[in-house]
Amino acid sequence: MTSTTDTQSALDAQVITWRRHLHQHPELSFQEHETADYVETQLREMNGLIITRPTPTSILAVLQGQAGPGRTVLLRADMDALPIQEETEYDFASQNDGVMHACGHDGHTAMLLGAAKVLSEQSRALHGEVRFIFQHAEELFPGGAQQVVDAGVMDGVDVAVGAHLFSPIPVGLVALKSGPLMAAPDTFELTVIGKGGHGAMPHETVDPIVIAAHIVTALQTIVSRQRDPLEPAVVSVTTFQSGTAHNIIPNSAVLTGTVRTFDASLREQIPRLMERLVQGLTDGFGASYQLNYTFGYRATVNDPEVTDVLRSVVRDTLGPDALIEAQPTMGGEDFSAYQTKAPGTFIFIGARNEQAGISAPHHHPKFAIDEQALSHGVKVLVEAALRLSQQTSGPS
Amino acid sequence: MTSTTDTQSALDAQVITWRRHLHQHPELSFQEHETADYVETQLREMNGLIITRPTPTSILAVLQGQAGPGRTVLLRADMDALPIQEETEYDFASQNDGVMHACGHDGHTAMLLGAAKVLSEQSRALHGEVRFIFQHAEELFPGGAQQVVDAGVMDGVDVAVGAHLFSPIPVGLVALKSGPLMAAPDTFELTVIGKGGHGAMPHETVDPIVIAAHIVTALQTIVSRQRDPLEPAVVSVTTFQSGTAHNIIPNSAVLTGTVRTFDASLREQIPRLMERLVQGLTDGFGASYQLNYTFGYRATVNDPEVTDVLRSVVRDTLGPDALIEAQPTMGGEDFSAYQTKAPGTFIFIGARNEQAGISAPHHHPKFAIDEQALSHGVKVLVEAALRLSQQTSGPS
Amino acid sequence: MTSTTDTQSALDAQVITWRRHLHQHPELSFQEHETADYVETQLREMNGLIITRPTPTSILAVLQGQAGPGRTVLLRADMDALPIQEETEYDFASQNDGVMHACGHDGHTAMLLGAAKVLSEQSRALHGEVRFIFQHAEELFPGGAQQVVDAGVMDGVDVAVGAHLFSPIPVGLVALKSGPLMAAPDTFELTVIGKGGHGAMPHETVDPIVIAAHIVTALQTIVSRQRDPLEPAVVSVTTFQSGTAHNIIPNSAVLTGTVRTFDASLREQIPRLMERLVQGLTDGFGASYQLNYTFGYRATVNDPEVTDVLRSVVRDTLGPDALIEAQPTMGGEDFSAYQTKAPGTFIFIGARNEQAGISAPHHHPKFAIDEQALSHGVKVLVEAALRLSQQTSGPS
Amino acid sequence: MTSTTDTQSALDAQVITWRRHLHQHPELSFQEHETADYVETQLREMNGLIITRPTPTSILAVLQGQAGPGRTVLLRADMDALPIQEETEYDFASQNDGVMHACGHDGHTAMLLGAAKVLSEQSRALHGEVRFIFQHAEELFPGGAQQVVDAGVMDGVDVAVGAHLFSPIPVGLVALKSGPLMAAPDTFELTVIGKGGHGAMPHETVDPIVIAAHIVTALQTIVSRQRDPLEPAVVSVTTFQSGTAHNIIPNSAVLTGTVRTFDASLREQIPRLMERLVQGLTDGFGASYQLNYTFGYRATVNDPEVTDVLRSVVRDTLGPDALIEAQPTMGGEDFSAYQTKAPGTFIFIGARNEQAGISAPHHHPKFAIDEQALSHGVKVLVEAALRLSQQTSGPS
Repeated sequence: MTSTTDTQSALDAQVITWRRHLHQHPELSFQEHETADYVETQLREMNGLIITRPTPTSILAVLQGQAGPGRTVLLRADMDALPIQEETEYDFASQNDGVMHACGHDGHTAMLLGAAKVLSEQSRALHGEVRFIFQHAEELFPGGAQQVVDAGVMDGVDVAVGAHLFSPIPVGLVALKSGPLMAAPDTFELTVIGKGGHGAMPHETVDPIVIAAHIVTALQTIVSRQRDPLEPAVVSVTTFQSGTAHNIIPNSAVLTGTVRTFDASLREQIPRLMERLVQGLTDGFGASYQLNYTFGYRATVNDPEVTDVLRSVVRDTLGPDALIEAQPTMGGEDFSAYQTKAPGTFIFIGARNEQAGISAPHHHPKFAIDEQALSHGVKVLVEAALRLSQQTSGPS
Repeated sequence: MTSTTDTQSALDAQVITWRRHLHQHPELSFQEHETADYVETQLREMNGLIITRPTPTSILAVLQGQAGPGRTVLLRADMDALPIQEETEYDFASQNDGVMHACGHDGHTAMLLGAAKVLSEQSRALHGEVRFIFQHAEELFPGGAQQVVDAGVMDGVDVAVGAHLFSPIPVGLVALKSGPLMAAPDTFELTVIGKGGHGAMPHETVDPIVIAAHIVTALQTIVSRQRDPLEPAVVSVTTFQSGTAHNIIPNSAVLTGTVRTFDASLREQIPRLMERLVQGLTDGFGASYQLNYTFGYRATVNDPEVTDVLRSVVRDTLGPDALIEAQPTMGGEDFSAYQTKAPGTFIFIGARNEQAGISAPHHHPKFAIDEQALSHGVKVLVEAALRLSQQTSGPS
Repeated sequence: MTSTTDTQSALDAQVITWRRHLHQHPELSFQEHETADYVETQLREMNGLIITRPTPTSILAVLQGQAGPGRTVLLRADMDALPIQEETEYDFASQNDGVMHACGHDGHTAMLLGAAKVLSEQSRALHGEVRFIFQHAEELFPGGAQQVVDAGVMDGVDVAVGAHLFSPIPVGLVALKSGPLMAAPDTFELTVIGKGGHGAMPHETVDPIVIAAHIVTALQTIVSRQRDPLEPAVVSVTTFQSGTAHNIIPNSAVLTGTVRTFDASLREQIPRLMERLVQGLTDGFGASYQLNYTFGYRATVNDPEVTDVLRSVVRDTLGPDALIEAQPTMGGEDFSAYQTKAPGTFIFIGARNEQAGISAPHHHPKFAIDEQALSHGVKVLVEAALRLSQQTSGPS
Repeated sequence: MTSTTDTQSALDAQVITWRRHLHQHPELSFQEHETADYVETQLREMNGLIITRPTPTSILAVLQGQAGPGRTVLLRADMDALPIQEETEYDFASQNDGVMHACGHDGHTAMLLGAAKVLSEQSRALHGEVRFIFQHAEELFPGGAQQVVDAGVMDGVDVAVGAHLFSPIPVGLVALKSGPLMAAPDTFELTVIGKGGHGAMPHETVDPIVIAAHIVTALQTIVSRQRDPLEPAVVSVTTFQSGTAHNIIPNSAVLTGTVRTFDASLREQIPRLMERLVQGLTDGFGASYQLNYTFGYRATVNDPEVTDVLRSVVRDTLGPDALIEAQPTMGGEDFSAYQTKAPGTFIFIGARNEQAGISAPHHHPKFAIDEQALSHGVKVLVEAALRLSQQTSGPS
């Protein structure tokens, strides 16, 4: 007779194996072909899963509960890696030059495989339906989430749950927060079009550097003056390129940057405020402009009732001290695409271990996780699926 | 028999007497009633002058030469004082509280009386005609010069000469310059109209202080970028008034200032550049504005040929070392009104005497002149009138 | 036998009478002598209260519970009025010219009198101790709260509760929020010291207007760049005064404004960031400065556990629909002084009635309340005192 | 017998031949080896010249007058070409890819060869001494002029004359001006050193783009406020390079630019004003900086008396209508190096011919000259040498 502990150990070992394989073979966003094949192969070892590909590099596995009617719960992992050259010493370090799982998506995929394995073995205790979506391309706008949603993955889903291994939080803790969690990351490119000429004869030019400098200072007022101070927002000009020589005033200056918001109406308002400023200032200086503004992912805003269920799940599976309140972040995440179709919550699973030297931030060449976090993730995802699918009335 | 020296001494003493009387009884611009009466009384003591009042407080004296035909030369003095409380120790200090001849117009008037006296006694040697205009209101826009010109004082005049006692230059020297000498002093008043509100809720306001601050910084570019660097210009915002309380964002901000130029086309261009900037920036920040721009006196631009004649006059009357090159100044002067009707030149007569402690700047409560300068001025004006009226062809 | 309903009606009528008397006789901050006398007179009609004056115009009433040991609960009302000329049509409108209860403190005082009356009649059911503090001078920094705290009013207190009648919220609702509710309102005065001179000769001056304009634009970056975007803050320059004449560059410019924060460490950081900028910019332009920064009230930050108790109180006394989540505001309140000594929570009691035309904002000459709100306030305060004093262990 | 006209025609043809050869074989600054060899070969055909090489690619030819003692006059031509790909259709267009005589130095060299030829044939009529300096590297700082001066070329020289073929002025005219003619062209490179980070977390960074933008706006005040408005100056930021990605705030920003002045003390003052501003602003924002400031050529300031002699020379050789007043320009020229050793004047020889389609500006791929200008240049240089060397007392 196999003990629970043994089963658990075997599962943990399996999840770690999956994760290390994935870590060794990272693939960039929209190119996760081998990753998807690998995931599909693992899923096909499990029982009762209906496996499809919503898009070429994403996998959907559907598990029908045998315990009677219930709700449909979607669990999501993302699978893509980053264009970073790994600098860790692990023997399972990336074998693909310049590509690295530096954000933890390898772990997300392994955890979701683990949850699928556990739940597929417990389908008799399961109500309703669980969908496991192994999503491609979270790192690269326009992102895989919207694509799998467009492919129908969320049709009929009652509640969605996603988890991110999180380097700032010590392993053993899980952070949750109702409401706004991650910002909408939009981007812009602005060209200020002046008129070039000799550096000694500014009056014969329309100096784009001086004008763009005034625009950069004026843009600060969007956050400082034109926005509700209780509604978080960031407007960053992150590149400014203009000119080629000491004595030549250039024709134009090109600025790019990012805008971060949580509130949808503020999000729509900022490009209008930005364009009003840019148009006014370029008019004022006799210049013209071109402004390209790209809306990226929506803000990730967690559902209060789903979050409450997950709080209980964390306390009950990992102990009451494991639960902490998450801090919102101005960073972005395309989990928000699922939240447009059903209530959902995104959680942070602690993966830091200072004593073991595991503390590099996400997207760093030495990023790492404490692999115990994988076990925590599997437990939370499994229990979340069991509880949320059992509920007969969904979150309002 | 009276020697020339004695005559000269008597004249100098007379001019000083006139000047001290005027200094003791200063009157503000457009209020020079007693001054005008005093001047008229003195002129009526002289022979051959036709005396009229172009305006209530200005005097025109016309002297016909007896030596045959020639040109008509206008000599100009200004007569008004300033709203300054005198702080000198002279026994002829101002008797009128808060009013002072702190710019030297008392001396200008006395010198021109002196020139009128000398020339009226030499009319047999004089060709053509000399007009002595004792002008009111140089210190206060719109100025007396334009009014006496409008009254016809310059009709038929061939050449105009004005002189200013000048504190920065040592007594004994006279400074001349062809071309631009004194700038056109224009003014503006700008109201930036935002929307007031609570200091803690900037997003519900349109903050006029932040907008006006951006306008002040942007206005710097008119001089730094939008003007030929070889064409002098000043744009000064000299007042900025906005707000009443720590916690209330005000509705508007009011800015005033001055603009100085020599070149007529640049002078006309600056208010357009200014309004373009103000309109663009207020549009950009969602505010509005009101801009009142007032063209003051024109630039004083000296005629090359008249200036050449005056150079000779100075060298011949005061010695070759007395002549120096004048530096242009961004200050203004309404002598320019005469120059719209005929070629003219404005000169600076040194009045400083450091050793005697005479060095306070113009418009200072301790302003003073070395009275020897009066004698220099009379000599130059007399000889200028004699030579310029004798010429048969005018400056082109 | 008197029914409960009758008792309630009589109480409500009494509270309204108190409120109207106070409304008719408003007194400015630190001058609440007649108000304090009136309150004391009313309290002396009640049983079992120990009445003292912590300061000349504040009243403390202490009620010992008879039901056994418990905690000490402080209930707070503020009593001062504003320098505003009332424009309502009420027959109980202010009789004091230019002074008005335009913020609802008359109602706060009446509600707390009502709570004192009810609790003094129920002292046998009361555990522990209740302190009723009728505080002076909330509207005027440095405020009365700190003064009564310094006088020992909070010594031995376990929990503090304050309530504000709130015009933005409809009558019948009560708004609560755990954590930051009202900002710390600090102020500053900055003098930029340049060197004045002639408007046409900027190079001989150090132009304070241009420098101060650069400072205003640079100060925007404290909020836009130098602060955690998730931590609310406002930096408003609300007055800018400089200059007297079109053609004179002034010596200095004086700016004042307000800074609002919730977070204590950000609050301390902002004046340092501000001074670093001001020092850097004045150094850069060759000017100097004087900066006076005044820390006002602390931020009002509600205790989570006290807030949870109060949520139950509101639901149980006014019905489950009466409870709404409060929105934080960048406005300030000196209730925060009590929170430095014990956990406390400040709540908003809806007082708006659009249909009855009661909708003017606080500090408006037509400010009014729906007097039904007074009854709600009394009920909540009484029940809060009963429950919070009964608890044997305080909020952590 | 050869007529004067024939001689003149032959000379003109020779000069054109020289110029076209040089045009066809342009060499970059400091690389004028073949050019120098060619010039030396031509000079060695002439009589009475002592030929040396002050530097590897410059030629000095000295001619002693036979008519008795006199002064030593230096005539200067520059010989280097520009890194520009020629786009003219001439059959003598550049044969060197990417190198072009687009500023007229080919013509300068040919004119000076012509002058040397004429004067070497007239040495019996020549007093004193004439030095012909064929200078390398005018286009590239630190320039050849200073090098040949350092080599002693100016030792014992009494007066220096240089000429530039000038595209803005029609052929047939020669422009002269006493005093400041061409500005000192200095350059700077400024690195603003902040601290990079995530575009969504500005408070963890020190944003170099915002700081550099404030610096660019503040630098405008050097010209607008901190300089005598009558003393020309330009401060141009001509390049601004910072940042690489939408979501990354960079570590630093690099700005370069040019500063132009005439006045030596203002020239020295500007880098101090600039550094004061940069240090103040970077301090104010918590950043640091590196500023490299390079003084380029001095301003070219023409001697009044030499200029007067040259005015007569132009009038007498090309006719009174040929002489016009030159406008100063903010462009630079290393002729100024000669003026540090002796009085000197630099003149502009008209080379434009609109009707013939010759109007492209200097440094343009289609730059051209009307070759008649070469004849004018030779005549003026020859006559200038004859007259200036004959004077017995130099300009004061």
